[in-house]
Amino acid sequence: MEFYLKFVITHSPVQLVSYDRAELKQTLLMSGIYHLPSSPEGRAPVRRKTHPPWLRFHLGISRWELYNRKDPNMAGLTHYLATQRILSAVQKTGGTQLKLLMSFPNYGQALLKPMKQARDAETDGNLFYFSDFERHNAEIAAFHLDRLLGFNRVPPVVGRLINVTSEVREITTDHKLSRTFFTSPAGNVCFYGQCEYYCSLEHPVCGQPHALEVSLAAMLPDLTLAPRRSWRSPWRRSYSRTKLAQWEKDPAYCDTVKQTPPYNHGTRLVDLIDMAILDFLMSNMDRHHYETFEKFGNETFLLHLDNGRAFGRHSRDEPTILTPLKQCCRIRRSTLLRLRLLSLPAGRLSDVMRESLVQDPLAGAAPLLSEPHLSALDRRLAAILQAVQTCQHQHREIIYNDLEGYDGDFNQQPD
Amino acid sequence: MEFYLKFVITHSPVQLVSYDRAELKQTLLMSGIYHLPSSPEGRAPVRRKTHPPWLRFHLGISRWELYNRKDPNMAGLTHYLATQRILSAVQKTGGTQLKLLMSFPNYGQALLKPMKQARDAETDGNLFYFSDFERHNAEIAAFHLDRLLGFNRVPPVVGRLINVTSEVREITTDHKLSRTFFTSPAGNVCFYGQCEYYCSLEHPVCGQPHALEVSLAAMLPDLTLAPRRSWRSPWRRSYSRTKLAQWEKDPAYCDTVKQTPPYNHGTRLVDLIDMAILDFLMSNMDRHHYETFEKFGNETFLLHLDNGRAFGRHSRDEPTILTPLKQCCRIRRSTLLRLRLLSLPAGRLSDVMRESLVQDPLAGAAPLLSEPHLSALDRRLAAILQAVQTCQHQHREIIYNDLEGYDGDFNQQPD
Repeated sequence: MEFYLKFVITHSPVQLVSYDRAELKQTLLMSGIYHLPSSPEGRAPVRRKTHPPWLRFHLGISRWELYNRKDPNMAGLTHYLATQRILSAVQKTGGTQLKLLMSFPNYGQALLKPMKQARDAETDGNLFYFSDFERHNAEIAAFHLDRLLGFNRVPPVVGRLINVTSEVREITTDHKLSRTFFTSPAGNVCFYGQCEYYCSLEHPVCGQPHALEVSLAAMLPDLTLAPRRSWRSPWRRSYSRTKLAQWEKDPAYCDTVKQTPPYNHGTRLVDLIDMAILDFLMSNMDRHHYETFEKFGNETFLLHLDNGRAFGRHSRDEPTILTPLKQCCRIRRSTLLRLRLLSLPAGRLSDVMRESLVQDPLAGAAPLLSEPHLSALDRRLAAILQAVQTCQHQHREIIYNDLEGYDGDFNQQPD
Repeated sequence: MEFYLKFVITHSPVQLVSYDRAELKQTLLMSGIYHLPSSPEGRAPVRRKTHPPWLRFHLGISRWELYNRKDPNMAGLTHYLATQRILSAVQKTGGTQLKLLMSFPNYGQALLKPMKQARDAETDGNLFYFSDFERHNAEIAAFHLDRLLGFNRVPPVVGRLINVTSEVREITTDHKLSRTFFTSPAGNVCFYGQCEYYCSLEHPVCGQPHALEVSLAAMLPDLTLAPRRSWRSPWRRSYSRTKLAQWEKDPAYCDTVKQTPPYNHGTRLVDLIDMAILDFLMSNMDRHHYETFEKFGNETFLLHLDNGRAFGRHSRDEPTILTPLKQCCRIRRSTLLRLRLLSLPAGRLSDVMRESLVQDPLAGAAPLLSEPHLSALDRRLAAILQAVQTCQHQHREIIYNDLEGYDGDFNQQPD
């Protein structure tokens, strides 16, 4: 991204990033496609139809959510990522498994995760969550699920069938990546890259012979331009084969958390519980950290990034993921209402997810989530509502009322 | 092994190792089980019924074969390995994948290879042969197949269901091994050891929760006592993703080999072709080296060791494994006769193998080779006979007559 970005230093709900109009205009004009109508210099730039979708996405990020579900640009953005010509592909550093940074015309970028195993393969029960493969379809499904839950905290992700030869090997300038390409005994073009886990000849990523399913996640504004803060989750797992985390030993653990900033104020605690609900539904055990945009301070939404280890097992649930809800017995009113809606026969979560996922370009090959995974969503949703009910029998003030103007006292009439 | 072994330096077909009677007697008496009848000192020891089976196996090794198929001790040896108490378990160094050295009462030892994947899992077509997992059932099936072909060049192997907790973890003195034990999320006892490939938390060997299928191969006499010579196979693969080996580029490659010692004399060339036939039948591409017992010089059989990468794929054959036969157009008469017998409906290879494998203790759980693997044997056997026929149309003197007293000229009346 070669734009000059300046930050609007304010705490009111404004744009995360705003672009210097002169620079933006010049750069976009140089790209030969966009025309910016003249407007007074210095005024906060607005999103225009002529802006590329990724730019409109960045300009639309607010203090409260990553995107507005009704924003027509979202469909434009996923269409852009799914269809635009791939200009470059390099390895993305950070994290433990192979991922690529892809570039598109007009400076758009996306994070690519490749398909590494059969789409319906269940995670080996003898592997720890941190050893599990990342799944491209989990990244896609997590975006859809998060949106259906009304969170809008996962960057848009779309599936795409790429050609590993013409769209990676032949255009990459990343020598460390390109020298890991080879033709497999089965005649497929494969590569493995360089990374901490599973980047070896024994774990190749392979086309058939060139075609490879991948997920493409829209990139957030560059870290240098919109810095983020990383927070260690209070309910982080111990990441040890033998040691227990504090929350596993202390049933009253949440009492401590509730008194600790930033969880002692505002929505941070119920935001964390939202995240636990999302993770429990998709059985993601790997949420050791979460991020926020620094600019928005502590009063802002949590980014639900990096969902590749979700949807690994449908045959069992992982109750410990729900621990924040169970130990704190707090939940946003809007979240609870949404969950209840999604448990009704008319709008069952599995049905809504199936319908949503069918819009992804990869759904043509095979459903992005198999039926057992969709059923697991309904089963887990029931378990969450059950946990809320158990809380209601034991505590007062379970509901964090984030819906003003709603009639009736929710705490008194939970059902 | 604490015995003192002395070598009978001779080139006549005698025992590979002979034991000093006094030492042997003392050691075995100390073990409290065996009694050796007195016999004149200095005379070459004979195998006695009172000797433990592994000792009788060692004493029975000849210049021409590793064991005699009709020797009743073979059943005793496999029974011994399959049932005797396991006294110790340590990692065996050398090679690239995890294997253990197991010890039994009376100084018997065996090489353990664990089950690492579902028994009927086919090798991923995108993996190179040298990245393939070793399979415990391949070790067992290779022993049976080699014996059925009349080679008797694979050390006896038997399957066993062991308890990884009581028979490995609790008795091992190998700290490098024991500290890799852990209980998996599924509640199974697992370990991964230390080795070059696949020894990591991402590739655990797991009991269910303690029971693990393994193969146990009888150990050969210790290298210090019966040294072996390792020979690089002339048809060795290049072990590179890109380079071709010389034999892949030169159709007349065998002409060179035939003029090169030791292939220019005796049975070495047809021994190599026997090995290629065995490897083609079980689709083992990993025969880069082979070994012989140094004591027997160049006029001796080839050991068919290390068959864990065989039987990886049943759905296709690997024609290049047969290259030595195709390029040299030579075959032992005894081998050809045996192959023809095994191609007849009355004694079909797949049927004989199924019958042989059912005797293994692990056959109770599931057949050691699935039906597709057994069918592949028949298909590959037909391909070998076809290759011989093609040779017979193009060359004279295809048959190496190792059967004296056989009537009729085989070369003239091939069918």
